[in-house]
Order: sequence, then structure tokens, then C-alpha cells
Amino acid sequence: MTTGTPAPFTADDYKARMDRAARSAADAGLAGLLVAPGPDLVWLTGYQVPADTERLTLLVLAAGQEPTLVVPALEAPDAAKSAGASAMTLRDWTDGRNPYELTAPLLDVSGRFGVSDNAWAMHLLGLQHTLPDTSYVSLTEALPMLRGVKDAAELERLAAAGAAADATYEEIKKVTFGGRKEKDIARELADLLRQFGHEQVDFTLVCSGPNGADPHHSPDDRVVQDGDMVVLDFGGLKHGYGSDTSRTVHVGEPTDEERRVHDIVREAQTAACDAVRPGIACQDVDRVARKIITDAGYGEYFIHRTGHGIGVTTHEPPYMIEGEEQPLVPGMCFSVEPGIYLPGRFGVRIEDIVTVTEDGGRRLNSTARDLAIVG
Amino acid sequence: MTTGTPAPFTADDYKARMDRAARSAADAGLAGLLVAPGPDLVWLTGYQVPADTERLTLLVLAAGQEPTLVVPALEAPDAAKSAGASAMTLRDWTDGRNPYELTAPLLDVSGRFGVSDNAWAMHLLGLQHTLPDTSYVSLTEALPMLRGVKDAAELERLAAAGAAADATYEEIKKVTFGGRKEKDIARELADLLRQFGHEQVDFTLVCSGPNGADPHHSPDDRVVQDGDMVVLDFGGLKHGYGSDTSRTVHVGEPTDEERRVHDIVREAQTAACDAVRPGIACQDVDRVARKIITDAGYGEYFIHRTGHGIGVTTHEPPYMIEGEEQPLVPGMCFSVEPGIYLPGRFGVRIEDIVTVTEDGGRRLNSTARDLAIVG
Repeated sequence: MTTGTPAPFTADDYKARMDRAARSAADAGLAGLLVAPGPDLVWLTGYQVPADTERLTLLVLAAGQEPTLVVPALEAPDAAKSAGASAMTLRDWTDGRNPYELTAPLLDVSGRFGVSDNAWAMHLLGLQHTLPDTSYVSLTEALPMLRGVKDAAELERLAAAGAAADATYEEIKKVTFGGRKEKDIARELADLLRQFGHEQVDFTLVCSGPNGADPHHSPDDRVVQDGDMVVLDFGGLKHGYGSDTSRTVHVGEPTDEERRVHDIVREAQTAACDAVRPGIACQDVDRVARKIITDAGYGEYFIHRTGHGIGVTTHEPPYMIEGEEQPLVPGMCFSVEPGIYLPGRFGVRIEDIVTVTEDGGRRLNSTARDLAIVG
Repeated sequence: MTTGTPAPFTADDYKARMDRAARSAADAGLAGLLVAPGPDLVWLTGYQVPADTERLTLLVLAAGQEPTLVVPALEAPDAAKSAGASAMTLRDWTDGRNPYELTAPLLDVSGRFGVSDNAWAMHLLGLQHTLPDTSYVSLTEALPMLRGVKDAAELERLAAAGAAADATYEEIKKVTFGGRKEKDIARELADLLRQFGHEQVDFTLVCSGPNGADPHHSPDDRVVQDGDMVVLDFGGLKHGYGSDTSRTVHVGEPTDEERRVHDIVREAQTAACDAVRPGIACQDVDRVARKIITDAGYGEYFIHRTGHGIGVTTHEPPYMIEGEEQPLVPGMCFSVEPGIYLPGRFGVRIEDIVTVTEDGGRRLNSTARDLAIVG
């Protein structure tokens, strides 16, 4: 864990991203992109808003037009300090002004715009009202791969985040599970992620015994018992890029059935990772994992997609799901995380981040995937 | 700080809120309300989603219809555990299904709906696409006062949060400011808020010297100097309800000008608090504060509205701003926080939460508002 700090992205890096995004929008027949606070804005400009509030902050990108950030006056000084600030024009607005009227002159009055998935509905409605002949489509629908293919600098960060998650898992295996509350172990996971360089912890799931059958169970006061399966799923951001890893451990000796279910999930996860290569469709990754679990008789207990993209946020396109025909491209990064969830009993999930290489796939997590026995 | 834990809200409390919201929607000519994860959903159901993601979670409320929560299958167990769960029907959807098509049968196909301000644009676009004859308006525009008037149980929580913020200020005044980084003092503020019972810290601004002229400055590596004005602005949630307080302190002896600017802000803040009473318009609170600052020659340096509502979130209607004609009603709670910001030099802000009573207003913060001298 002696990785150094990567060189920060520069205004030129952000300018190149903004230029590319504007060109992609034009190629897709869009008049431009409307980028809201959150992962899209961070990726395009380096600007993290102090808080995502009712006050409109919106980056307007269009080919042949200077990138312009509409920003509340009292946050303009923060925006001006962002790494990408010199590559865009700031247009600030004071409380009491109508920010949509301020934005309107930047937009083609009859254009179709891509808008950040997580832009506030209130702001979209404000624009729709102010410019009734415009139309909108979510960025995930219009340009799902805008942030989907990572460059070398991004892959370096994702690998560092993955290594930190691996180090976290190696440490958490050493602690005592039996007799302690889920939420106390969850707190240790968060502390470890931070200790290994994460500046942000997004989730530290500890799902023991029957709670393991709930894939998104929030760690609570349940005391982990001897004989429990425990699903661990944790991640966050290091140097601005995400980690997301799951391993399932067991307190004491597992039953034959527990071993069998774990083996099936591990086999599915391995096969899906091995299937990753340029040109196959996202849904093929899902199909490989799902077929193994279904053939083993547990298909109805694999109740979520096989994976999701990861980058400046821990959930983004591409999604490894039936119906997603997007072909894999070198540089894409996503989770491969099949699971089996037996209601009222236990669950198993194994998850690695995988990046697509020129001729296959490469895992960014490398800790053992066998059923670890913990105390 | 020996306040006890208030009795939790029950399913009946949430049912009453949902019923009232549905009736208010009908009274406003709406076919219903579409409530997204965040403060609206927490207030109406007690359900805090594990994470606000691209997977649709949406509460549909309409008069004469059972409240229904559309929820991702893998989060349904969490939703089922929420305090309001028994007062609504859960309709879960699995990855790969179209959640908008699942939601559509719950909606009047040509209805007009109020939608949470912070609902994701992607979800609004999905509904607009699936039901092209529906129309939408943000909740803040349609029913701005839905959460605006607090009942006794809410006021008790807001008072407890305010008392915890007061205790935090009394402690932070004792620490050394000079020679220490803003962000280290900010961390102490966060620790104190938690120590005094906050389960969530939303912001701890420490804006020293010239940084004080930036109202939303994020605490950074700047070392506080002897002779600095320092704006402190901190808050979060205690028992689910918000605190938000500002005081301005000075390291060492202030200049005459610093004292004068602080006196003006204090006079404006006192007058605006004193003006609070049922029946006056929100904008009148802003006008009272703004007139005093403008008459003193600093009007152009008061660059934000005078206040915002507070409840299950720290920024919500009603807003104390020119143009807001909403009359004050007993039970409303909001900040009164005028400020003066002198670019490149310093800033001053004083903020209390005030609740409207039957015959006036009552501050929920009571620490001294004079210019405290710190070390």
C-alpha cells in the first residue's frame, strides 16, 4: 500500500473531456449537454459543489460554444477554484433572479439536450417551462458511454482504489465477527478504507445470517452468530475513483449446503470474469453468470443484475444486465458480482472490479475468493 | 444537554402525513404526488433509502388511493422495515424491468402531478415518456408549505437540535483558533455536533479572514491568523431534524471597522427576528434585515437571501427572500441570517433558527450574538 498520489487532473484534461463530450453530443444529434452537480460535473470540470441544493448549478456544453457554468453567486468563488475553471466561463446568479431565464440564452430554443440523470426534476421542469420547445433525454440514455471508457490515468486510480479495498479485506478477515454487532464491524470496514487512502466511504455492508439474503441490507444491531454466513460489500472513492468489492465469509465451520452455494457463486463469478473481452455484449457477462447459477437450481435466488460500471462514482453505465447490447470496449471498468439469496436463511455474493483489456479482462481485485473462515 | 430521546414517529403519524399530503394535492388541482428519496420521502414515510441511485424508488400519493411505494426488489426489505411501511403498499420491481411502466398504472394518464424537487431528471423523463399526456410541477412550486408548518413533536426536535448547536458554539469558543487550519477547527465542530447528539453533520464552515467574504467557503488549509474575523456556520440533523447556526468570532482585538460591520449585521438580525409574527410575508423578514444593512451603506455586500426553512432537511421552503409573499404561519421554522461580505477582506454572518408563534417569533438558538473574542 505504498502507492503514491497520482498527478492531479489539469485544466487541459478537463478541457479535453468537455470538448469530447460536446462533440459526442453533436454526433448523437443533440444540441448540447446540461450537466448537473455530481459525477458528471466532477468528471468534466473537477468541480464538487459545496452541497447539492435547490440553487441551480448547471454546466452547458455545446459544440462550437464556450463551456459555461451557471452557478449561484455565493458559490462562484468555489467554482472558480475548481481545477477545470479556466476551461469554462462562469455565469453567476444571485438569490431572487430566475436561473432558468439566465440559462435560456445559452440554449438552442428548439434543441434536444442530454441532461445528467441526477439533475433535479425541479430544474428540468424550470427549463421545460422557460423553453417549451426544447426536449430532453437523460445522459444514460443519450450518451451512456460518455464516462464509460477509462483512460490510463483513470485506470491507475481505479487500480489503487481496488488495491486499497483488497488491503481492507485482508485486515477485516483478522477481526472477531462472532458476538459483535454488524454495525460495529461496518465501522471498522469504513475506518480501514480510510486508513488505506479512501477520502470517501460510500457503503460498508455487513449482512449476517438471514440479513445476507437482503442484498442491500444496512448493517444494524444484529449480533453475528457462530455459524453465520456474512456478506461483506464495501467501497468508496480514493483519489476520486471508486472501489466496490464483496466477499462472503463464514463464522466457524460451514455446512455442506453453505459450501455448495458459495462454490456455485464463485464458479459463476469466475466464469463471468473470464468471459470479459472486447466485443462481447454487456448482457453476455450477465448471461454467463446467470446460466451457471440457474443450471445449479438457484436462478430464482439471483435477484439482481451481474454488474455496473464504476469510475468517479460507484454506480454508472455500463450495466451488465439482460437487454444491454452495448459491446465491451478496452478501458471499460465494471463490477462482476453474482449472488444467491435464500430468504430467511443466508446469502452469498462475490464481487470484483474488472477492466476490459485489448484481449480480455483484468481484475482490479485479487484477494482470495474462497469461503474464508473467520472467528 | 440532558434532553431525552423523543418518542419515534409511528405508522399512524406517517399515515396522517400521507393523507394530508394527498388531500393538499387534490385541493391544489393535482392528480397526485410523486415523492422521491430524500426529505419528502423521509417526512412522509420514515423511509431513508440505502443510497439514492439510478434505480427508481417513488411513492405515489393520490386522494382515494392507497399510498404505494415503487421500490427496487433488492431494497424492498429495507423499505418494509421503515416506520411508515404498514401505511403503504410496496410494489417492487426487479433489475431489467421498466420501472416507469410499472408505475404508470398507478397514475391518471392525463393527470398533473407534483414531484419532489430532487427527483432525478432521468426518472421524470421516464414518466414523461411513458405517459406523454401527464404533466408535472415541482413540489416547491405546487405545495411549498407541505412540510412548512411544524407540529409540536417536530418543534421539540428542532429545539433539541438548536440546543445542541448552541452547546457546540459554547465549546468551540474555548478552543484556540490562531495558528490552526480552518479544516481542523471544522473537524472539531463536527465532533462537537455529534457529541451533542447529532446523527448527521451536514456542514461545518470555518471561513477566516478573506475566506469569510465567501459565504459558502469550504474550510481548507488556510491557517487562521491573529486579527482574523472568522465566520462559523454549522448544522446537521439530531433525531432527524435540523440545526443551522452562524456566529462570527474574532481572533484578538477587532478594529473599529470590524466592530461596526458586526454591529450592523447584529442589528439587522435582531430586527428581522423581532419582525417575525403570523401574517407578515416572508419577504418582509428579508426587507427588514436588508434595509438596515443597506441604510448603513453595505447593501451591495449582502449577497444572499435572509433565510430558509428547516425541518427534516437544512434547506427547504419557506424562503425569506424578496418576492416571496407567503404569509408566516405559527409553526413555521426558518433561519434568519443576514451577512456582509467584503471581498478580499472579511465577512460577518449571524444566524438563528426562528419559529413562528401565535403572537410573534421564538428563537431556537440563544447563545450570545456579540463579537466573541477567541484565542
